[in-house]
Amino acid sequence: MTTITSVDVHDVRFPTAAAGDGSDSINKGDYSATYVELHTDGPHTGAGFTFTNGRGNELTCAAVRALAHHVQGRTLEELWADPVAFARSLSVDVQLRWLGPEKGVIHMATGAIVNAVWDLHAKEAGKPLWRFLAELPTEKLIGCVDFHHITDALTPQDAAAILDKGLTGLDERRAELEADGLPSYTTSVGWLGYPDDKVRELARSAYAQGWRAMKMKVGGDPEDDLRRARIIREEIGPDAVLMMDANQIWDVDEAITRMEALAEADPYWIEEPTHPDDILGHARIQRAVAPIRVATGEVAANRVIFKQLLQADAVRVMQIDACRVGGVPEVLAELLLAAKFGIPVCPHAGGVGLCELVQHLFAFDYLRVGTSLDGRMVEYVDHLHEHFTDPVRTHDGKYVLPSEPGYSATMRPESIAEFGFPDGPVWR
Amino acid sequence: MTTITSVDVHDVRFPTAAAGDGSDSINKGDYSATYVELHTDGPHTGAGFTFTNGRGNELTCAAVRALAHHVQGRTLEELWADPVAFARSLSVDVQLRWLGPEKGVIHMATGAIVNAVWDLHAKEAGKPLWRFLAELPTEKLIGCVDFHHITDALTPQDAAAILDKGLTGLDERRAELEADGLPSYTTSVGWLGYPDDKVRELARSAYAQGWRAMKMKVGGDPEDDLRRARIIREEIGPDAVLMMDANQIWDVDEAITRMEALAEADPYWIEEPTHPDDILGHARIQRAVAPIRVATGEVAANRVIFKQLLQADAVRVMQIDACRVGGVPEVLAELLLAAKFGIPVCPHAGGVGLCELVQHLFAFDYLRVGTSLDGRMVEYVDHLHEHFTDPVRTHDGKYVLPSEPGYSATMRPESIAEFGFPDGPVWR
Repeated sequence: MTTITSVDVHDVRFPTAAAGDGSDSINKGDYSATYVELHTDGPHTGAGFTFTNGRGNELTCAAVRALAHHVQGRTLEELWADPVAFARSLSVDVQLRWLGPEKGVIHMATGAIVNAVWDLHAKEAGKPLWRFLAELPTEKLIGCVDFHHITDALTPQDAAAILDKGLTGLDERRAELEADGLPSYTTSVGWLGYPDDKVRELARSAYAQGWRAMKMKVGGDPEDDLRRARIIREEIGPDAVLMMDANQIWDVDEAITRMEALAEADPYWIEEPTHPDDILGHARIQRAVAPIRVATGEVAANRVIFKQLLQADAVRVMQIDACRVGGVPEVLAELLLAAKFGIPVCPHAGGVGLCELVQHLFAFDYLRVGTSLDGRMVEYVDHLHEHFTDPVRTHDGKYVLPSEPGYSATMRPESIAEFGFPDGPVWR
Repeated sequence: MTTITSVDVHDVRFPTAAAGDGSDSINKGDYSATYVELHTDGPHTGAGFTFTNGRGNELTCAAVRALAHHVQGRTLEELWADPVAFARSLSVDVQLRWLGPEKGVIHMATGAIVNAVWDLHAKEAGKPLWRFLAELPTEKLIGCVDFHHITDALTPQDAAAILDKGLTGLDERRAELEADGLPSYTTSVGWLGYPDDKVRELARSAYAQGWRAMKMKVGGDPEDDLRRARIIREEIGPDAVLMMDANQIWDVDEAITRMEALAEADPYWIEEPTHPDDILGHARIQRAVAPIRVATGEVAANRVIFKQLLQADAVRVMQIDACRVGGVPEVLAELLLAAKFGIPVCPHAGGVGLCELVQHLFAFDYLRVGTSLDGRMVEYVDHLHEHFTDPVRTHDGKYVLPSEPGYSATMRPESIAEFGFPDGPVWR
């Protein structure tokens, strides 16, 4: 038996705003983590976090403290016996639920804690999370999926059929990922805060490094957007994939008009064209801009939003996030929903540590759920990996499959000390 | 010129959970307020709050502190010159927006601050908020509506037409409200935490006091739900209106099945039958349970959710909340959306101080937007009014139109002191 003896939360902030890194049409942040450590009486410490944009990271930290009693003093065996009941004990807390429900600050804190527990499960099993998940029997995996409020679109029977089918060819797919890595794209070329020269130089450099898919931010002045798209297209040629990301700035009709003007740069997808809660709006945009794909999900609040995006045929690319929702049980539901509707999942990453987490989800999805690499890529942003003990590695524009036990969520103690807010040397 | 010189926030909690007041299928709370005071160099103090369920009220308080710099030091005249730009300065904060966006803790705190500013605007004008709003010229009112992300359903031109039409008969409607009060219903009869005898006694007593519409909680054991519905129907007779409220507990198909069983008690509406983010789910339930109406909105995160509920024909009754969304400019958008789609608004109340606020919204809606009382009622719960300086008054099952200047949001200083958390005498 292993008992979770205490819960620590650290407010860790990196001063990225001043450099223009991560700037887009709505965000200009100091990339930050609400970093959770679950101390145990066993050999391992569980690590989990949620990503925020700087100011306000104290709110998700406080939310972790408000939820910590649901995990403190419990045994890993007890939590593993019913992983959904445990995750839901946080999301249905009779007093805290009002603050969401299942969205925003309280749900992000839920995800940080639940993911830290899954980091422990994988570490105890001595496997990286992707492998720990992929090797679970279907019956146990089904017991790890939060089906609440989505059974009209995905039943446990549907999920079992998908996961059973995923057992066929599993070893071949794993050998393929080990040999070739995880297909990915880079977002580091076109933040809105960067001048034209820097955009050109970054696109050229990314192409030289092997990237054949890259993403730019749009949603600024229409002429600026088009000029920057042309610069990137010039550098990467007609065959490389160019994605665009509007970060929710447009109204529905505006999104349609703006994409008409940007179509000449042959975008592969338009990401977050409008408000993230607007399922019907995304559906209208998808109908209007096809064959350009609509992609969204990085701030989709929960599995109920994803369910509807799929039911309404509102996205052709689904972008899950590892930290926004309530942890692994909810992410599993989202991967299975996408498979049921035949939509590829391209996880959102970047920020702090998101690349480290989503590589596990992408690999598990390929091995056991989606079982195809067609149209699937993990986002890659080359910031802040040096703060993790098991950082992502890339080679020729692909992620190298992680091999250390756990969820790759553990931060270096020196980084926590240096960037701790407000007392770390960087912030004093 | 009046300057907002400082922002105070108080964590005020009432120990209601122990008594079973406010208990339903998902909530069992200590009704609480994140209470904001805007001190000025003028004669008035602005009051606003958001309601929470107890634990976690420290999160909304912390969110108010994180947002306070958007209002501190600004003049009322400057905020009044562009009320939407001011409200949006909070909801599009480039670092804090990630924590929502426009939902949960950060959006509720936004609402508390923005509403406190509107309390000041109305106090400076010497009018209750309902009258202050109703007497504004259409052009100014349009400038107070947050249209962002909803122009595909409601344009400023649509809104102007509705508001202009609302000028006709305004004086007659106002005289009617002053003479007759605001139609309402009571929710105090059927909380899940109450035993059968108490439910019977409360239904009988409410009927005797003049209430002809009342609401019970459902979503517990199916036989319990039906037995309690029969008890209330016995007491109130076939002509009184009985509403049911499931507080989001059911999956979509489950909601449809459960309402088939409860139909014998002739419910007027089923409120929150499933997850509040599930627009398509509500639409399916509405088609299946008609002529029973689907009602929702008390935790609808923002105007984009309401827009879609209307576009999808998912509700026949729209329930706005005064505190959940980003304050008056967003509530105005919601009232106008409902009018555009011809759906009656029955505001959510109860909790702490929600009755005090929504009476103003209901009166304004009748006077200037919806212009009909058909199928319209304000919720009434008889808890905690004694803590406000201008509490709601009811007479014969109706609200008496408020007359004091402002938004009726001001709490008694003795209550703030006594119920302040964690240092008030009640909590020590």
